[in-house]
Amino acid sequence: MIRVLVVHSVKLFGSALAALLRAEGSFDVRVAPGLSGTGWGGGELPDVYVVDVECAGSATLMQDIASAAPGADHAPHKGALLVLVTADRPGMLRKAFDSRALGYVDKNNGAEGRLADAIRIVAKGERFVDESLAFGFLRASDVPLSARELTVLSLAAEGQSIGDMARGLRLSSGTVRNYMAAATRKVGARNRMDAVRISREAGWL
Amino acid sequence: MIRVLVVHSVKLFGSALAALLRAEGSFDVRVAPGLSGTGWGGGELPDVYVVDVECAGSATLMQDIASAAPGADHAPHKGALLVLVTADRPGMLRKAFDSRALGYVDKNNGAEGRLADAIRIVAKGERFVDESLAFGFLRASDVPLSARELTVLSLAAEGQSIGDMARGLRLSSGTVRNYMAAATRKVGARNRMDAVRISREAGWL
Repeated sequence: MIRVLVVHSVKLFGSALAALLRAEGSFDVRVAPGLSGTGWGGGELPDVYVVDVECAGSATLMQDIASAAPGADHAPHKGALLVLVTADRPGMLRKAFDSRALGYVDKNNGAEGRLADAIRIVAKGERFVDESLAFGFLRASDVPLSARELTVLSLAAEGQSIGDMARGLRLSSGTVRNYMAAATRKVGARNRMDAVRISREAGWL
Repeated sequence: MIRVLVVHSVKLFGSALAALLRAEGSFDVRVAPGLSGTGWGGGELPDVYVVDVECAGSATLMQDIASAAPGADHAPHKGALLVLVTADRPGMLRKAFDSRALGYVDKNNGAEGRLADAIRIVAKGERFVDESLAFGFLRASDVPLSARELTVLSLAAEGQSIGDMARGLRLSSGTVRNYMAAATRKVGARNRMDAVRISREAGWL
């Protein structure tokens, strides 16, 4: 029996995904909003983690799973990460890939039993990628923004002014303005607000 | 047997919610990304529509359901709208309320069987409101922004400049700037970007 931990910040969706899995196969499914208190004691790991990358805190969560996952001395099919993604958010795909996710299921692929099949494959230590995600992966391989540009853009999205950012990042206002201008140009935006919108929709932020 | 139409723009979540309902009660559940092609022929309506207000296009969808729902000459328990919401987005609650939703289920309330219970109540024509949503409703009753301010803010969020908006709305640049300043002040924001962020998080946009 494959042990599956569904991690979702929205409780109703966690329960709903668990119900779907219980209906589609013989899985031992638990649901949790995070990694602690998952119900498996004695240092045991689930066979597969299912994580929605659009959940609040998913980036940190995926990193934690990657750290909790086994090194070379463990069986390769323990604690595998399977992510729920969409093709139109390459930044999210990138984060999942960087967290060594083994399975990638398209939330907009309506094929029945898809998630259950993917879990069975990933539990064997094999990679699973929904074919509808191919184009998203191509785009994800090409991050348009530098780490600094991403930082400045995400602070701007939080409502920080150039002055706030300059103080917080210990940079000159001119430098912050340059990062912002570069980011706006690179994503093909008309202005700052537009750059935030485009970057967010792509999943870079 | 209560007939339930789950409308969700994300296919996997639609299927998962349907699986949850099938596990929790005897419902005749269908899933669709919109109102057309729902599988009930002959002009029949489902007893209850379940709509996630955070779905793409949910505002239009809720209006369409309100229009499709019966007038005074029909039984009151046909075509009732039940929405999935969260307490921290009063603007979304407001939109649901304006669409005459009868049921309000908190997506972050983890109580088992909650959604099924709510559907049974709404199907009888009775109101259902998750108690955890009370505070959100209080906030929702007090929309801070005028329709014009909301329009300007949402165009700004799309990346339009003051000039773009002035042309599109046939207003002077000064007037657009005034609406923007009023909106920024009313939501307690530091600047335009901050106003968009705050309004979006509250669900006004």
